[in-house]
Amino acid sequence: MAEAETHQENAERQDGRIYGEDGVLSSDFIAGIRSALERRDAQSLREAAEDLHETELGDLIEYLGTEERQALVRLLGSDFDYTALTEVDEAVRLEIIDAMPNERIADAILELDSDDAVYILEDLEEEDRTEILQRLPFRERLRLRRALEYPEETAGRRMQTEFVAVPPFWTVGQTIDYMREDDDLPDSFAQIFVVDPSFKLLGAVDLHQVLRAKRPVAIESIMHPTRHAIPAEMDQEEAAQIFEQYDLLSAAVVDDSERLVGVLTIDDVVDVIQAEAEEDFRRLGGVGDEEISDSVRTSARSRFPWLFVNLGTAFLAAMVIGLFDATIEQMVALAALMPIVASMGGNAAAQTMTVTVRAIATRDIHIHNSGRIIRREVLVGLLNGSAIAVLLACIATLWLGDPDIGLVIGTAMVINMLTAALAGILIPLLLNKAGADPAIASAVFVTAITDVVGFLGFLGLATWWFGLG
Amino acid sequence: MAEAETHQENAERQDGRIYGEDGVLSSDFIAGIRSALERRDAQSLREAAEDLHETELGDLIEYLGTEERQALVRLLGSDFDYTALTEVDEAVRLEIIDAMPNERIADAILELDSDDAVYILEDLEEEDRTEILQRLPFRERLRLRRALEYPEETAGRRMQTEFVAVPPFWTVGQTIDYMREDDDLPDSFAQIFVVDPSFKLLGAVDLHQVLRAKRPVAIESIMHPTRHAIPAEMDQEEAAQIFEQYDLLSAAVVDDSERLVGVLTIDDVVDVIQAEAEEDFRRLGGVGDEEISDSVRTSARSRFPWLFVNLGTAFLAAMVIGLFDATIEQMVALAALMPIVASMGGNAAAQTMTVTVRAIATRDIHIHNSGRIIRREVLVGLLNGSAIAVLLACIATLWLGDPDIGLVIGTAMVINMLTAALAGILIPLLLNKAGADPAIASAVFVTAITDVVGFLGFLGLATWWFGLG
Repeated sequence: MAEAETHQENAERQDGRIYGEDGVLSSDFIAGIRSALERRDAQSLREAAEDLHETELGDLIEYLGTEERQALVRLLGSDFDYTALTEVDEAVRLEIIDAMPNERIADAILELDSDDAVYILEDLEEEDRTEILQRLPFRERLRLRRALEYPEETAGRRMQTEFVAVPPFWTVGQTIDYMREDDDLPDSFAQIFVVDPSFKLLGAVDLHQVLRAKRPVAIESIMHPTRHAIPAEMDQEEAAQIFEQYDLLSAAVVDDSERLVGVLTIDDVVDVIQAEAEEDFRRLGGVGDEEISDSVRTSARSRFPWLFVNLGTAFLAAMVIGLFDATIEQMVALAALMPIVASMGGNAAAQTMTVTVRAIATRDIHIHNSGRIIRREVLVGLLNGSAIAVLLACIATLWLGDPDIGLVIGTAMVINMLTAALAGILIPLLLNKAGADPAIASAVFVTAITDVVGFLGFLGLATWWFGLG
Repeated sequence: MAEAETHQENAERQDGRIYGEDGVLSSDFIAGIRSALERRDAQSLREAAEDLHETELGDLIEYLGTEERQALVRLLGSDFDYTALTEVDEAVRLEIIDAMPNERIADAILELDSDDAVYILEDLEEEDRTEILQRLPFRERLRLRRALEYPEETAGRRMQTEFVAVPPFWTVGQTIDYMREDDDLPDSFAQIFVVDPSFKLLGAVDLHQVLRAKRPVAIESIMHPTRHAIPAEMDQEEAAQIFEQYDLLSAAVVDDSERLVGVLTIDDVVDVIQAEAEEDFRRLGGVGDEEISDSVRTSARSRFPWLFVNLGTAFLAAMVIGLFDATIEQMVALAALMPIVASMGGNAAAQTMTVTVRAIATRDIHIHNSGRIIRREVLVGLLNGSAIAVLLACIATLWLGDPDIGLVIGTAMVINMLTAALAGILIPLLLNKAGADPAIASAVFVTAITDVVGFLGFLGLATWWFGLG
C-alpha cells in the first residue's frame, strides 16, 4: 500500500500537475495560467513557471494565443527562461522575438548557452542581429560571431562553443583544481578535451576516467584519441549520421586546421536524426517541411506543386483510357473494373517504395546487395499479385457471370503488380543514383507507371480478347 | 596546403579505409576480408577487425553471406566483439547465435554490458537462456535475471544494471576514492546516484559537479532531485518520450518501491525514438515492421492483409461506378475523366493525413487546438481544390470542346478536395480517440471515401446536368 502511494506521488509530482493523462497540457494548469494572465498577476505566474522545464514552458507558449504569449513573456520579465524559445515552432519564436526590443534580446542571449543563442540569432534580420551582437561583452560576441560564420545547417552552427580544454602535460590533480576554480566553464559537460598550444585537438578524456585516476597521473596517459572529430563545415545531417553510427554522446568540432572550436552533443543532434527520418515520410506523403502552426496560405502554397504534378499524371492516365473509347462503349462493365487494377498496383508500389526509400536512407540497400533485393521485391510482387489476381478474377466472374472477364482482369492484375514491384524499387534506386532525393520524386513517377500500365494492360487485353475496339 | 592535407588525412583515417564515399563498406575492404576468410587467415582477420567499432563490425556481418559470417565469428574466436550483434537485424543475430554452443555464448555474455547481454538473451529459447544463465557467476546471473523478469519492450529490459550509487552522507573525497578503488564500476557513466540504505533513490550528482566541488563537501549538498526517474515497468516508447521531452542523457530506473535498479542512457533510447517515427511512415505506406533482410515469404505475408483490405475498397468504388452504367454508355468520355477526380482527392487526402498522423504522434494536435486545425485543413483544401478545379475544368473543356463537362468536373473536384481535407484530418483524429492507431487504418478509410465521393460526385453530377442515365 505504502509502495503504491509512493509510486503515485511520484507520477503526480512528475507531470500530473502540468500534463493530463493524454500527455497534453491539463485544462486545470491552463486555466490557472490564463486567470493569472487576465489579472496581470506576475507573482502567481512566476510561481507557476519557475519549476517548469524549458520544454514545458515551450509547450505552454505554443498552446497560448498570440496576445497571451506576449503578456506571459512581458509579465515574467527576467524570470522568463528564453531557452524555451528553442523548443517552439519557428513562427511562434519569431512572433515573440519580433515583439521584443533588441536590448532585451541581448540580455536574454547572454543567459543562454551558445548553441541556444545561435539558434535564436540565426533567424533574425541581419540588422537586428548586428545590433544585438554589439550589445554583448567582447568574449560572448566573438564566440557567437564565430558560430554564426559557419553556413546554416552545419555542425558549426549547432555546436556549443563553451568547453573544457587542458594541455596534455597537466596532471589529473591540476585539471581538477582548474575545474574547481574556473567559473567560465559550461553548465554541463561529460568530456575534457586535450589540446596543444595552438588549440589543435590531441584527444579527449571522459570525466569518469578523470575521477578514477590518481591526482599525479598525467592527462596524456589517460586520454584517448578522438576518432570522430567533426569538421565545423560538415552538414548537420552528416554529423548526425556519425553520432548514430558510432553511438556518440558528444563529439569535438574542429575547424579546417584541426583546431578545437566547439562541442556537439547528442541532444543537439537527436532532433536532426528525427527530422531526417520524418523528411522521407513527409515527402512520400507529398508535403514539405510545413509545421502545424503554419498559416493556411503557406501550407496551401507548399502543397500545391505536388497536386499540380499529380494532375499531369492523372491526365496521362485519362488519355490512355481515352484510347479505348470504342472498347468501353461496347462493354461498359470495363469502366467499373478498370480502376481496381490501377489502384491495387498503386498500393503494392507504395509498399515497395516505402521499404526502399527508408532502406536507401539508412544505407541498408546499396550497390552490393541491390540485385538480391530487387529479386526479392519481384518475387513478393509475383506472390501477392497472383493471390490478389485469383481473388479478383473469381469475384469479377461471379459479379458479371462471365469467366472471360475474370481471366482478363486477373492477367492484367498480375502484370500490374509485377510492374508495381519493379517500379517501386527501381525508380527510387535510379533517382538516388542520379543524385536526386528518392522520396520526393518517386511517388509521382511510380503512380504514373502503375496507372498507365493498369489501364493500358486491362483495356488492351480486353480489347484483344473480346475482339472489341 | 598543410591544412588541407591534415583535414584529408583525418577524413581518411576516419572512414576512408572501411567505407566508400557513398557511406557503404568499400569494395577494397570487403575484398580484403573475403580473401582472409578464404585463406582461413585468422591473423589478418584479427588485424583488420581489431580497430572496428561495433557498428562497423555489425555492418560487415550484415554484408557477408551466411557461411562467411559463421567463418568470421569462428576465426576471430575470443577477439570477436559480441556487442556487434546488437547492431544487426534480428534474423542475422539469431543465425549467428544459433550456430554457437551455449558455453561460448555464456563466455561472450560475460564480456558485454548488461543491456547488450539482455538484448541478445531475450531472443533465445527459454531452455538455452536458462542454461546460459546457469553458466554465469552468481552476481551477473542475478543482474541479468532481474532485467529479464521485466516484460519485453519495457525500460527494465533496456536498462543497464551497472551503476555507481553512494550514500548521501559521503563526501566528494570519499566518493572519488571509492571510484578510484572499486573495479566493479560500469565502463562509462556520467552520473552518480545517491541512495538510502534500502537503495531507495534520493537524487543524483553529475560527474562535472563532483569534479568541481572540494573534497570535504557532502554529496548530499551537491545532489539534485531526480525528477524523471523511470519506472522499470514503463513501456520503452513512453520512456523514450520522457527522454525527448526533457532532453535527458540518462535517467535512473526504479522498481515499484522506488528502489534504484538500473540506468537508462540516451543511446539505448535513440533507436526507440527513431523506430517510433518510422513506424507511422511504414504503416501509412501499408507495410509492417519488416526488415530488408526478411525472407520473401515473411514480407509477402505481412503485406498481403493491406492489399486484401484495399481490394475491398477498390470493389466498393467499382460498384459505385457500376451504378452509372447507363450514363457512361451514353457519354463514354466520362470514363476517361472520372479517375482524375478520384485520384486527386486521394493525393490531397494523403497530404492532410501525413501531417495529421505525425502531429498526433508528436502531440502537436490535441483536444484544445483540433478545432482550429480542422478549419485550417478545410481552408487549404478549399484553396488548392479551387485552383486545381479551375485548371482541370479548362483542360477538360479544351480537350472535349464542351464547357459543360468542364463545369461538371470542376465542381466534382472541389467537392472531392473538400471531402479529402475533412476525411484526412477527421479519420485519424477519430481513430486516435477510439484508441486505434491512426496510422495503420487511416489510409484505408480515407481512400475509400475519396474514391467513392470522387466517382459518385462526378458521375452523379454529370448524370443530372446532362440529363442522362
